[in-house]
Amino acid sequence: MAKIKIGIVGYGNLGKGAIEAIKVSPDIELVAVFTRRDPQSLQIDGVKTLHIGDAPNYQNEIDVMILCGGSATDLPEQAPIFAEMFNTVDSFDTHAKIPEFFELVNRAAVSSKKTSIISVGWDPGLFSINRVLADAILPVGENYTFWGKGLSQGHSDAIRRVEGVKHGVQYTIPSEDAMDKVRSGLNPELSTAEKHSRVCYVVAEEGADLASIENEIKTMPNYFADYNTEVNFITEEELQRDHSKAPHGGFVIRGGNTGNGNKQIYEFSLKLDSNPEFTASVLVAYARAAYRLNKENQYGAKSVFDVAPSYISPRTAEELRKDYL
Amino acid sequence: MAKIKIGIVGYGNLGKGAIEAIKVSPDIELVAVFTRRDPQSLQIDGVKTLHIGDAPNYQNEIDVMILCGGSATDLPEQAPIFAEMFNTVDSFDTHAKIPEFFELVNRAAVSSKKTSIISVGWDPGLFSINRVLADAILPVGENYTFWGKGLSQGHSDAIRRVEGVKHGVQYTIPSEDAMDKVRSGLNPELSTAEKHSRVCYVVAEEGADLASIENEIKTMPNYFADYNTEVNFITEEELQRDHSKAPHGGFVIRGGNTGNGNKQIYEFSLKLDSNPEFTASVLVAYARAAYRLNKENQYGAKSVFDVAPSYISPRTAEELRKDYL
Repeated sequence: MAKIKIGIVGYGNLGKGAIEAIKVSPDIELVAVFTRRDPQSLQIDGVKTLHIGDAPNYQNEIDVMILCGGSATDLPEQAPIFAEMFNTVDSFDTHAKIPEFFELVNRAAVSSKKTSIISVGWDPGLFSINRVLADAILPVGENYTFWGKGLSQGHSDAIRRVEGVKHGVQYTIPSEDAMDKVRSGLNPELSTAEKHSRVCYVVAEEGADLASIENEIKTMPNYFADYNTEVNFITEEELQRDHSKAPHGGFVIRGGNTGNGNKQIYEFSLKLDSNPEFTASVLVAYARAAYRLNKENQYGAKSVFDVAPSYISPRTAEELRKDYL
Repeated sequence: MAKIKIGIVGYGNLGKGAIEAIKVSPDIELVAVFTRRDPQSLQIDGVKTLHIGDAPNYQNEIDVMILCGGSATDLPEQAPIFAEMFNTVDSFDTHAKIPEFFELVNRAAVSSKKTSIISVGWDPGLFSINRVLADAILPVGENYTFWGKGLSQGHSDAIRRVEGVKHGVQYTIPSEDAMDKVRSGLNPELSTAEKHSRVCYVVAEEGADLASIENEIKTMPNYFADYNTEVNFITEEELQRDHSKAPHGGFVIRGGNTGNGNKQIYEFSLKLDSNPEFTASVLVAYARAAYRLNKENQYGAKSVFDVAPSYISPRTAEELRKDYL
């Protein structure tokens, strides 16, 4: 059977993860990586690199384009343009702007008879699926989402802006106490701050005032002030050795009730060594779905809510029913 | 908007659970419960009861029939017959016979232009969905399914057949040790017996030989001999007080690898006070999907693999994207 032919737009951590995920997908092949940089500057083993401006010439060579840009500026600009030429998947994750983004992409994809699956990954993505399934199955109940243990890029950046800080990383940690309450079916009211604490590892400049750095971090509005925050000072070597990965994960838990007060606890969780590699793996699986939906003339923008599980699997319907049901 | 009109076939624990689930579903209404017994003998508050033989007269009154019979004899007989008259959902759970069951139901539903979603519940059902998603997203890895803590009807029956046993219940307990190994990403080889232990609570007849009962249970082939089995003798009062519910649940865990050996742990779990009420809640949510798929002319037998998440939710696509994505 012919393989599904994929293009990747963007060679950051997500694009690199997508290359790895395609390598282990026997029914999918990578045609090229498209970049805004000089394509000659990217030397990727066995992978063709092209300038993003060449993409329009590859409409007949590529079944699905995986958009690996960021949500702040890349995707709002690129997704509607690419949806006019290709089936696409993206990981747009600015929650508040999803409805607007969906409309933009939908308009483009409907007019070009292409299929675009937006906001694919784990949150939004797998977590969203579980919030919907749990809510539909247990109408009486409450959904909870916890994030972590995970490296937060935004909070790490905030630490690094503090005077006297040379390097720093921040982990978001879900509160075990809050999770236990939720798992017991109590359906407590919990703020984001009550659900999470923040742990920082900081490399200070030589001679910097540590107490003042710690105080400035802990009192930083929005980022840390409302949270239980811990600040640890470490050496540059320790940072390199212990904090160079991008782990993440989290939990979606629903405490539901059925009948005469029976508690039903629904839980989904991920514990990821590499956030971008996992997100890219989800994108590649949903590229399969975009290709298949398009073959069925299901045009326009879709979300993970519109995709049946079988569409992301390389296995046949018969095999799934026999071995996985 | 008109509500989705449901009929329930069978008034056992699952049928009772379905009545409760429909009560909390604002877009769904119950038309009648169909039974093989004398319908006059069932007095259910506010619910019409009819003989199962009257079902053919209700084809215009009922959008989806929820089949709440057992997998051993009821469903293989009823499902193909009902699929000739109604959209249906069922919880057929004899894993080895699913392909054959699917074909039977599919033939009936295709010819009648009806839609039947088979093997709905949590295993098969939600667990199956998670096995497929995890496998598709993390092709390099291993799926593990653990059951429990849960009351096993088959094993409880086996205990009660032992001479000198008056009453007894058996719980299947997942091994914490095995789960920890799986969660660490080691992807160990584990037999079903290594993944679970069995805990029995037995009420003995007066004067019975307890040591001999314990020995007979622990050495019973297939049921207990291969397992770490614990036998506790309790009084009739304790059994009534502590063991009258039907709790169940379990775990689907995939240990996956991406890129250069990064571990990615995917986990789904349920902790259920009432197994039949939860299963019935899943059936009612998928009845919504059967109704909608049929409206879209998607005829024939389907499994949970063929149903996109939005189809089981009472919420609009806009609401889901805005609040759940």
